[in-house]
Amino acid sequence: MTEIYADLLNKVWENKPLVHHITNYVTVTDCANITLAVGASPVMADAIDEAADIAAISQAVVLNMGTLNERTIPSMIAAGKSANAKNIPVIFDPVGAGASKLRNDTAVNLTSQLKLSVIRGNISEIRFVAGLASETKGVDASSRDLADAKSAIEVAKELARKLGCIVVISGEIDTVSDGYKTLYIENGHPMLGKLTGTGCMCSSLIGSFCGAAPEEPFAAAVAAMICMGVAGELAFESAGRYGNGSYHAALHDAVSRMNSETLSKMARFYEA
Amino acid sequence: MTEIYADLLNKVWENKPLVHHITNYVTVTDCANITLAVGASPVMADAIDEAADIAAISQAVVLNMGTLNERTIPSMIAAGKSANAKNIPVIFDPVGAGASKLRNDTAVNLTSQLKLSVIRGNISEIRFVAGLASETKGVDASSRDLADAKSAIEVAKELARKLGCIVVISGEIDTVSDGYKTLYIENGHPMLGKLTGTGCMCSSLIGSFCGAAPEEPFAAAVAAMICMGVAGELAFESAGRYGNGSYHAALHDAVSRMNSETLSKMARFYEA
Amino acid sequence: MTEIYADLLNKVWENKPLVHHITNYVTVTDCANITLAVGASPVMADAIDEAADIAAISQAVVLNMGTLNERTIPSMIAAGKSANAKNIPVIFDPVGAGASKLRNDTAVNLTSQLKLSVIRGNISEIRFVAGLASETKGVDASSRDLADAKSAIEVAKELARKLGCIVVISGEIDTVSDGYKTLYIENGHPMLGKLTGTGCMCSSLIGSFCGAAPEEPFAAAVAAMICMGVAGELAFESAGRYGNGSYHAALHDAVSRMNSETLSKMARFYEA
Repeated sequence: MTEIYADLLNKVWENKPLVHHITNYVTVTDCANITLAVGASPVMADAIDEAADIAAISQAVVLNMGTLNERTIPSMIAAGKSANAKNIPVIFDPVGAGASKLRNDTAVNLTSQLKLSVIRGNISEIRFVAGLASETKGVDASSRDLADAKSAIEVAKELARKLGCIVVISGEIDTVSDGYKTLYIENGHPMLGKLTGTGCMCSSLIGSFCGAAPEEPFAAAVAAMICMGVAGELAFESAGRYGNGSYHAALHDAVSRMNSETLSKMARFYEA
Repeated sequence: MTEIYADLLNKVWENKPLVHHITNYVTVTDCANITLAVGASPVMADAIDEAADIAAISQAVVLNMGTLNERTIPSMIAAGKSANAKNIPVIFDPVGAGASKLRNDTAVNLTSQLKLSVIRGNISEIRFVAGLASETKGVDASSRDLADAKSAIEVAKELARKLGCIVVISGEIDTVSDGYKTLYIENGHPMLGKLTGTGCMCSSLIGSFCGAAPEEPFAAAVAAMICMGVAGELAFESAGRYGNGSYHAALHDAVSRMNSETLSKMARFYEA
Repeated sequence: MTEIYADLLNKVWENKPLVHHITNYVTVTDCANITLAVGASPVMADAIDEAADIAAISQAVVLNMGTLNERTIPSMIAAGKSANAKNIPVIFDPVGAGASKLRNDTAVNLTSQLKLSVIRGNISEIRFVAGLASETKGVDASSRDLADAKSAIEVAKELARKLGCIVVISGEIDTVSDGYKTLYIENGHPMLGKLTGTGCMCSSLIGSFCGAAPEEPFAAAVAAMICMGVAGELAFESAGRYGNGSYHAALHDAVSRMNSETLSKMARFYEA
């Protein structure tokens, strides 16, 4: 089964999909570089006067509300609708959902107005989007949410069915569900949580894989999360002992050198 | 006496304060990563519709006017007032004060409307905020300001008394004053000046330490500046010979691996 | 002849020109760091209330339309006019020209309203600015444009004469023309295309060299492109085998350690 995911990596390199991002200015450079590292091509454009145009020529659109504002929210809607009209996959990263009314309203707004292919967030963010009580602490998941009785799998399945999309909950173990089939991915490393933007980069990778295989959003999301998790492990092996700066460079190294063999060999996941 | 500062580092790791930044898009990634590296948690949010909400759930607020504009200035005021209402420490970094009317007006605006815990800048920026003739060259201190008869200690003391806050003047030797007690910190390395954002990162570290010890802004500011200075020295030892890119990674490495023993052992400061 | 270009590098270090950027938030950190690495001083300021003021105190102005919007476009015009009034060189990087109506209109707008010293882009972008059919794919050159019968040299010469400025077309071989004299630069490495912002960084280097030698924009543009190309080769030698993250750090290392001897020895260019 691992071959499906490994093959998708080759597909990214072959198709070199153009991935349009409307994203935050904190992690945007890392998102652009990880998109290039995995073999896709990033474009960032958030002006309302071009968001729909750029989305229409892309193979995937990533909407990340990390530093949303009154100027970029309408651009996200416009880009998403433009992509929807052409069946271009839309990936939504509800950064900080639950932390402020603006983020809450925007998350509701985007999920109700757009047809999403994949939503990816931490457990607090996804709980909020799913309409459950949530305790987002800034942009990190709260420990209460992490320990909550309603486990990640239930939240993911429910939201996936409700919105008819793939739901990815990032965490120590990642959960990917289409509402019926659910996979747990064990790859990854705690040091990923010590760098800003590793969540956003996951969403960029999902966009890259979805852009290369728009008809397989579930497999694309799984492949992207495995890719990031394996890269996080390889980066720790080569540079974790030096500290965060070296680990950051090693993470980009690992994604740029990832191939289908490494991905197949190191993937660790199982059906829920 | 060094133990006070070393202990504060442990406090950051224990309390993991949420540090809200309204800052510039040039150095924001480095600010987020350095905040994570020192054990705190960054959140960046500058929309007027959420700035006050995010500030209210944070343990410290850093206002940095590096790429200010008509949209973010009111957000800085709103975040600052929200923090003031809850006695959350506010750190102000008057980047480029003296270089344009907009920056000058904003610096006056923020210092008059907000109760600040710490102001940090180079000598040109702090001279401007203190109401002295200033010669800011873009975002760097001018050589005339560096050589001016009125020494850093006088400027820092006067401004600290006037505003009732801690004043930090970064330079070859850093000056930290509460208006009465003043410390000189000798740690640091000239290569820090060859990277963008090392000043902004100092302000993020001050925010992180203040968030962990809001009742001790003087000690927090001193500890943050020692931490950055020591990291700058360690980074030079391990990577300075390779050039700026490696030095950048090594700087983040050093902050992420900093512990109270290293900080105690390497700290070099004395009372003025 | 190589000495002319090598000497200009020394001039950057001696004059330390202040280079004002109105640029995109994707690559801005790299632009600031590369400007510091080559010995110049960056300042980024895009608010309409200060763009003209900051331009007026700078030695060069770089206008990059990577993430343009309705707020920053008027700031680019204001900064450009302010620079023109003082004969400060203006460098224009028409990122993504041809990809959306907004970018097309802005490129026409800036080239018609401002007196430019240097325009730098890939072949698709420059073809668009020159009024030729163009097929920009996001922010990368299209393969059809790369193979088009009308070769880079003709496009560069025509545009340079039309606008009375230096035209730089980045590619496997870089083309620099003032409309009469044209140089091909062979330095560079394919890995530069796997990092975001290497084009933007070229424009920042051109700004740095033009700021140090405003009377010699042709030589400044050539020197900047050689500098980046040689750095790309050195970075590949030292870190290319590790992957994109290490290559990124090595690129900044190489520019920061570049000196006139290395530049002279490794430069590979010839007159067209």
